[in-house]
Amino acid sequence: MERSFQIQLDDIRRLLLSMGGLVERALELVTTGLIEQDLQKFAAVFSIEEQINRSHLQLDEACTNYLAVQGPVAGDLRMVVSAIKINVDLERMGDQCINMAHTGRDFVRRTTHLSVDEIRVMSRVAREMVKEALDSFVRRDMGLAQKILVTDDELDVRKQNIFESMVGQIKLNAADVEAGLDLILIARNLERIGDHATNIAEDVIYFSTGKDIRHGKYA
Amino acid sequence: MERSFQIQLDDIRRLLLSMGGLVERALELVTTGLIEQDLQKFAAVFSIEEQINRSHLQLDEACTNYLAVQGPVAGDLRMVVSAIKINVDLERMGDQCINMAHTGRDFVRRTTHLSVDEIRVMSRVAREMVKEALDSFVRRDMGLAQKILVTDDELDVRKQNIFESMVGQIKLNAADVEAGLDLILIARNLERIGDHATNIAEDVIYFSTGKDIRHGKYA
Repeated sequence: MERSFQIQLDDIRRLLLSMGGLVERALELVTTGLIEQDLQKFAAVFSIEEQINRSHLQLDEACTNYLAVQGPVAGDLRMVVSAIKINVDLERMGDQCINMAHTGRDFVRRTTHLSVDEIRVMSRVAREMVKEALDSFVRRDMGLAQKILVTDDELDVRKQNIFESMVGQIKLNAADVEAGLDLILIARNLERIGDHATNIAEDVIYFSTGKDIRHGKYA
Repeated sequence: MERSFQIQLDDIRRLLLSMGGLVERALELVTTGLIEQDLQKFAAVFSIEEQINRSHLQLDEACTNYLAVQGPVAGDLRMVVSAIKINVDLERMGDQCINMAHTGRDFVRRTTHLSVDEIRVMSRVAREMVKEALDSFVRRDMGLAQKILVTDDELDVRKQNIFESMVGQIKLNAADVEAGLDLILIARNLERIGDHATNIAEDVIYFSTGKDIRHGKYA
C-alpha cells in the first residue's frame, strides 16, 4: 500500500462498495450456475472470491493506516471502526459464496428433480440486501438500514420453508437426501449472507447516530 | 462506560478472555444438554449469550475509547484493531451456541437412536480451540496460534464424517431425517466456531508480527 499516507475516508468507502459489488456478482453466478446447471459459473466464483480477499487485506491496511496517521475522533473514528467490522462481514460473505459454489457443483452433478426456484428467490433477496446495506452505509441512510432488518426476517422465513419442504421430499424419497441437503445448506448460506448484511445495517445505524441497536439496545 | 478515559490495553485483554470463557461454558452446556438429554442446559445457554452480548458492546466501546484517547500507533494500534475483530468473532461464536441450543432442544425432543458421540468429540476440540485462541492472544504465542490452524483442519474432517454418516443413516431409515439433520447442523455450527477460533489465531499472528497470513499471504 504505497499510498498509505494519503488514505482518506473516501478511499475506504470506495473499497467497501467495490467489495459489495463483488459479493453481488458472486451470488448472481452461484444462482445462474444452479438454474442453468452450468459448472463454469461456479468456477468463476472462486476467482471473484480471491479478489474479495485481496480487497479485504487492502481495506484493513487502509483503515489501520488512517487510524495511525489521522488519529480520528468522534464520527470519523466510529466510521472507521464500523468499516473494519463491515470489511469482516464482506469477507465472510465471500466465504459463504465459496461454500455455495462447492455445494452447487455437487448439486448440479446429481440426478435430481428437486427445484431451485425458492433458492433463486432467496438469492435475489440476499443480493438486494447486500446492495442496500452498502448503499445505506455510503448515504448514511437510516431508513434503508432499518428496512434491511425487516427483510432479514423474511429471508429467515424463506429458509425455514425450504428446510421443511426438503425434509418432506427426503421422507418421500430417501434417494433425494444428498440433493435435498445441498439445497438446505445453500439456503443456510444465503440466510447467513442476510445476517451479514444485517450486521452492516446495524453498524451503519451505530456510526450514523452513535446509537447501538445491537442486542436489543434500541429501546 | 464511566471509566472510558482510563481504559487500558489490560482491560481490553481481560474483557476478551472473559468472553472466551463464556463461549467455552456455553459450548459445554450444549454438549451436556445433548448427552444427558437435559433441556435445562440449553436454557442456560441463552442467558450466557446475553452476557456475551453485553461484553461485546462493552469491549467495542473500550476499543473505540482507547483509539480516541490514546491515538495508538504501531504494535498497540494493530493490537486494538485485532481486538475489534476478535470481539466480532467471539460474538458470532455466541450466535452459533444459540443456534446449537435451538437445534439441540429439537433433537432431545425427538425419539431417535442416533448417537451424539462424534458431536461430543467435535465440541471438545472446538472448546480447546477457543481457549487456545485466547491464550495465544494474551501470551502472543505464535506456536499456539499455528497449532490452531492445524486443529481446524481436523475439525473440518470430523464434520465431514458426521455429515456422511448421517446421510447414510437417513438413507437407511427416512424417519431419521429430522434428527440426522439436527446433528448435521450442530456439526456445522461447531465447524464455524472452529473457523472463528482460526480467525482469532490469524489475527494474533498478524498483530504479533505485522505479518498477514490470511488468504495464503504467509509465503
